[in-house]
Amino acid sequence: MKPRLVPIEGSIVAPLGFRTAGVFCDIKRLGTGKGSDKGQKRDLALIVSDAPCSVAGLFTTNQICAAPVKVCIERVRQGVAQAVVVNSGNANACTGRPGLRDARAMTAAAAAALQLDPEHVLVGSTGRIGVPLPMDNIRRGITLAAPLLGRSPDHAAHTAEAIMTSDTHPKQVALEFRIDGHTVRLGGICKGAGMIQPGMSATGARPPASPAGLHATMLAFLTTDAAVEPRILQPMLEQAVALSFNRITVDGDMSTNDTVLLLANGLAGNPRSSLRSPSSAARRTLQAALNQACLELALKIVRDGEGVHRVVTVRIDGARSHADADAAARAVGNSALVKTSWHGGDPNWGRIIDALGYSPASVVEDKVDIGYSSPGSRKILWSLKRGQPTKASFAELCAAVAPDEFDLHIRLNLGKGSAVLYAADLTEAYVDYNKGNVTDPTTLGG
Amino acid sequence: MKPRLVPIEGSIVAPLGFRTAGVFCDIKRLGTGKGSDKGQKRDLALIVSDAPCSVAGLFTTNQICAAPVKVCIERVRQGVAQAVVVNSGNANACTGRPGLRDARAMTAAAAAALQLDPEHVLVGSTGRIGVPLPMDNIRRGITLAAPLLGRSPDHAAHTAEAIMTSDTHPKQVALEFRIDGHTVRLGGICKGAGMIQPGMSATGARPPASPAGLHATMLAFLTTDAAVEPRILQPMLEQAVALSFNRITVDGDMSTNDTVLLLANGLAGNPRSSLRSPSSAARRTLQAALNQACLELALKIVRDGEGVHRVVTVRIDGARSHADADAAARAVGNSALVKTSWHGGDPNWGRIIDALGYSPASVVEDKVDIGYSSPGSRKILWSLKRGQPTKASFAELCAAVAPDEFDLHIRLNLGKGSAVLYAADLTEAYVDYNKGNVTDPTTLGG
Repeated sequence: MKPRLVPIEGSIVAPLGFRTAGVFCDIKRLGTGKGSDKGQKRDLALIVSDAPCSVAGLFTTNQICAAPVKVCIERVRQGVAQAVVVNSGNANACTGRPGLRDARAMTAAAAAALQLDPEHVLVGSTGRIGVPLPMDNIRRGITLAAPLLGRSPDHAAHTAEAIMTSDTHPKQVALEFRIDGHTVRLGGICKGAGMIQPGMSATGARPPASPAGLHATMLAFLTTDAAVEPRILQPMLEQAVALSFNRITVDGDMSTNDTVLLLANGLAGNPRSSLRSPSSAARRTLQAALNQACLELALKIVRDGEGVHRVVTVRIDGARSHADADAAARAVGNSALVKTSWHGGDPNWGRIIDALGYSPASVVEDKVDIGYSSPGSRKILWSLKRGQPTKASFAELCAAVAPDEFDLHIRLNLGKGSAVLYAADLTEAYVDYNKGNVTDPTTLGG
Repeated sequence: MKPRLVPIEGSIVAPLGFRTAGVFCDIKRLGTGKGSDKGQKRDLALIVSDAPCSVAGLFTTNQICAAPVKVCIERVRQGVAQAVVVNSGNANACTGRPGLRDARAMTAAAAAALQLDPEHVLVGSTGRIGVPLPMDNIRRGITLAAPLLGRSPDHAAHTAEAIMTSDTHPKQVALEFRIDGHTVRLGGICKGAGMIQPGMSATGARPPASPAGLHATMLAFLTTDAAVEPRILQPMLEQAVALSFNRITVDGDMSTNDTVLLLANGLAGNPRSSLRSPSSAARRTLQAALNQACLELALKIVRDGEGVHRVVTVRIDGARSHADADAAARAVGNSALVKTSWHGGDPNWGRIIDALGYSPASVVEDKVDIGYSSPGSRKILWSLKRGQPTKASFAELCAAVAPDEFDLHIRLNLGKGSAVLYAADLTEAYVDYNKGNVTDPTTLGG
């Protein structure tokens, strides 16, 4: 039976016992040359639990990994945390040993303001690469935010805003559900619009089975009042991320800072023991909620991707293996020619089969089916069957790729491997935005 | 001693005994919806030798491989050919068994018009994928072209024009040099502007050591009057292609039709035997000529790439292996964020090191050097040394990336692997061109 998940307000402060605040401390102006000219933008936030939390996290598998990611990997391993401090406007990436010192000092400043153990404070940063973190601003921000902590939807919205970079709007979700007779809440916020193709793992190490090409700064922070042990929470988050954040691409560029953190403070009072069995109703309900929250957040990232007009769900079936299916989906979803054809509303299967052919996946021309449907629909209009164009008219196919969102179905008919990738078109607006970042002569690189 | 290679006129008809003709037979209008509105464009050509030739060829490693490629792979293996028939406007790719029949019929029609053995006629096609080859037009074109064959520079220019698709101008080269006291000539033409990241091999099979991500339609036809045995010619062409066509990328998309053919008719009269030893002066001279001709042609493709404004030579050194160096170069040269920064004149090393970090190559942050120079210069302005920004000013770095062409030097400082990739920026013009191909309701897909 499908668990009942009810959307509620308040995102990360919807669960009991969480408070947050997002403030402006001038980092964005320093870090990116943006912000001040468009009015003050919030750029630092605190998320705090009244009680110590079980924590789980996943992090970029980019070999160039930002200082806050390194700090989180260490601390998440210990399984306990109580707060997150996060800034936008500066990624604290490629900042060497001083950067690592700054990331730790940032958690120490938050810990002092919140009267917590610094080891229980996690940290996230996003923005320009290679610029030292402006620690005076960070400390000022933390001092500003700590007395403002609260649990209204406005508080959550401020934090969702404070983590934005090129995002055009804040991204939030919250769900309420029942576990063993207890009402439980799960909330989340995320940011990300460019440098988006996350491939995250628990330790930042590449899973051996994963394609080398996995590639976002995306940040996501999730909170729940469920009572869960860390050793249970981590695999649950891994499953949710595998089906959501690790299945999206905007531009194929994996960031140095991708981070997903989940804090569970247990205040809902559900019995922890019933979450130990993967087949328990309690576990299945919490997993379903986590999967849905992560997928909603991940899709918000693709839909708000830089310059993105169309979102295409690439569904590969019949690949020789799941790894093959993933590789095929990423070749299609990251092909400049396929992405520009989506932008142009061109049902161009030639570019799609070309990308399949150069992908690492096994592909046999006269076995390939390519078709389109509305999002989630099984009513597929096939443009190619067994490598041959169907009778579908050009007008019908154009109509299928005209909506802002559609599903692209590709059947390789070689095996049982399948994969889904939520991909975006490539527009002039993406190029214009990303060529136009030469704004601040004081910021080298990044 | 460096052999003396003298540029001459006439490209593919500069060598003794070659004739060519390029004509208009209305394929481009049928195949792409383009051409007729902009005036008649040549779209079929013949290249013919007076004497049978040794032949060598390299072909796309895309698993989806066009019919003319399949025909050429078979015939090049036999080592002898005397003519090439080629059309633009239709790729004869993803056309199944009828497509293969059409490709063979195209060679048979050319053979009949030229009074040659059909097995000695090679074939190339480029243009829209998935549309049946218009055989009536093809036959009309061959009938038109055969009586027009000639060896003036105008004849060569017409053929260079007839193979163009989105190219803005014909691409030609010819060199004259001395082998064993004989004057020898080598000429070539090529086409290609989008779907460009060739990874070609002799059989269309992926070399086991090559990165899976290798990915153009590019066509190149080379002629020489050198006397060379086929078993010597093939490895010589392989070396030249490895250093040229297989080292370019415009958009990272490898085509279904990439083809390089080299015909050597022996009319220069040099002794074949002195080319057998790889270390002979004769062999080294011919190899140098072939390398230079292929590199000049390959660079013309990148410079004329769709919407391309800047051409960047990515030079990786100090990688753990050559394969690592190649993978690192392709990650950087195909990153949407790096390419848009080149377009914007932004010396953004953060995006470069990010791409290095998610590439399959081993990369260690505090070992990476990134710098810029004029093309081919060793006077490098470093922006990053051992992972740390240098004292180079933002203005200096902006000046380094402002020219239409510059070299990007990346030293990984982990080993002895090196690679060079000739890459292009990503512009609004690329997106605009490639979204805008929905012009002909009668052409499904491709």
